[in-house]
Amino acid sequence: MPEQITLYTSKASPFAHRVELALAEVGATYQSHEIPLRAKPTWYARRINPANEVPAITYGGPLVSPIRPSPDSMKITESLIINEFIADLYPDSSFTPKDAVSRATARMFIDAAEWKVIPQFRDFIWCGGSTDALMNSLEYLQTILPENAKFALCDDFTIADAAIAPFVAQLVMSLDLGCYMDGEAKQVLEMLQGPECSKVWKYWQAVKEQPSFQATFNENRQQKCFK
Amino acid sequence: MPEQITLYTSKASPFAHRVELALAEVGATYQSHEIPLRAKPTWYARRINPANEVPAITYGGPLVSPIRPSPDSMKITESLIINEFIADLYPDSSFTPKDAVSRATARMFIDAAEWKVIPQFRDFIWCGGSTDALMNSLEYLQTILPENAKFALCDDFTIADAAIAPFVAQLVMSLDLGCYMDGEAKQVLEMLQGPECSKVWKYWQAVKEQPSFQATFNENRQQKCFK
Ligand SMILES: N[C@@H](CCC(=O)N[C@@H](CS)C(=O)NCC(=O)O)C(=O)O
Ligand SMILES: N[C@@H](CCC(=O)N[C@@H](CS)C(=O)NCC(=O)O)C(=O)O
Repeated sequence: MPEQITLYTSKASPFAHRVELALAEVGATYQSHEIPLRAKPTWYARRINPANEVPAITYGGPLVSPIRPSPDSMKITESLIINEFIADLYPDSSFTPKDAVSRATARMFIDAAEWKVIPQFRDFIWCGGSTDALMNSLEYLQTILPENAKFALCDDFTIADAAIAPFVAQLVMSLDLGCYMDGEAKQVLEMLQGPECSKVWKYWQAVKEQPSFQATFNENRQQKCFK
Repeated sequence: MPEQITLYTSKASPFAHRVELALAEVGATYQSHEIPLRAKPTWYARRINPANEVPAITYGGPLVSPIRPSPDSMKITESLIINEFIADLYPDSSFTPKDAVSRATARMFIDAAEWKVIPQFRDFIWCGGSTDALMNSLEYLQTILPENAKFALCDDFTIADAAIAPFVAQLVMSLDLGCYMDGEAKQVLEMLQGPECSKVWKYWQAVKEQPSFQATFNENRQQKCFK
């Protein structure tokens, strides 16, 4: 019997989505507990994540109700650390790059995405960031995606994809919402579908078809519009 | 024959020191090339690290002169990613935490150090940051060091220690340099040696005695004073 896993998640959080993708890819059994971001229970920071953010998981210890976490479980926080942990638990899954060189490649991709793509996406979607900055980050993403593979690292959906896919999804979905100023969404969509972003757009088509993505992304994951 | 490893490093860089510690702990054979930070050769950004920072390593491909890197080697950048890679290459080394739970614990320690300790140390040492901010980060470091282990994770010097030790060393050494305003160094040293920082001070004593540390730290690693 594998150890119990409890995921604390929120439908609104692309960071939590990363972990849902990982758990789906490896086929882990887990219980999931929704944390309402605007009304977080006080026990959550005290007993699960001092940073008071989702996602977090508990691992091991007795199988208990998520709202009564056991002191005997390990508490793991930070989406990227949780996903490395899940990859470690399932070394033979296609989610986990097989050798040290592929793992280093995946980690360099994730680091680049985390610092040079995702902040610009978040700025644009949720903080009124400029289309210029977004378009630069899309051009950059185009340079780090591979030419001849379906996903970020290879033809398998790996830890690298779980890190970036939720944000690509939020970006694309947000363009349909009428959140942006006149013409902005159209301009971004045209770029996305044009030659400058050919790899990004192909990537998004592959992500959309991936069963783990379809199982974890739905309208509930769609952010509210902050225009 | 293991693949070749070439390290691009700089005596002045605590980030590069992280990787030297890792390589020393696992006992890797490698060649090392000093990059003068104030006069970086132009091929370095072009052929090794586009971010133009040390450390970086090349892995595999033919064994060539560091100044003529082969296109056939893998280029790995970012000290923490390089150290994960080294840990992956030497899974049986005491440097590499043995199971998924210890690896997650190490990564959470590293993440906490990277964001809540090291920036404050760097600010204080190199950018005129306040003693108050430094002292808060020391208090925080005290809370994340274990009670009953020699090092950050356990009694072995692991990837967690390689991440933080260079910065603790720089801080302690800088206190002797007369870099700070009157009384500042004395105040910090008193705190370090007092009850509030008991674990930090004990940690520094253990680090100082570690053979990998002694082999990689010397006066050359001592930063210039920026008062
Ligand atoms: N670095 C964290 C970021 C997590 C994060 O920012 N989570 C947000 C939701 S998207 C959160 O819980 N924020 C706290 C709040 O909204 O009160 C991770 O990667 O897990
Ligand atoms: N995040 C990088 C930071 C590396 C870094 O900041 N290196 C500095 C030296 S300490 C550097 O090479 N800076 C470029 C320069 O000084 O020109 C890592 O962890 O490897």
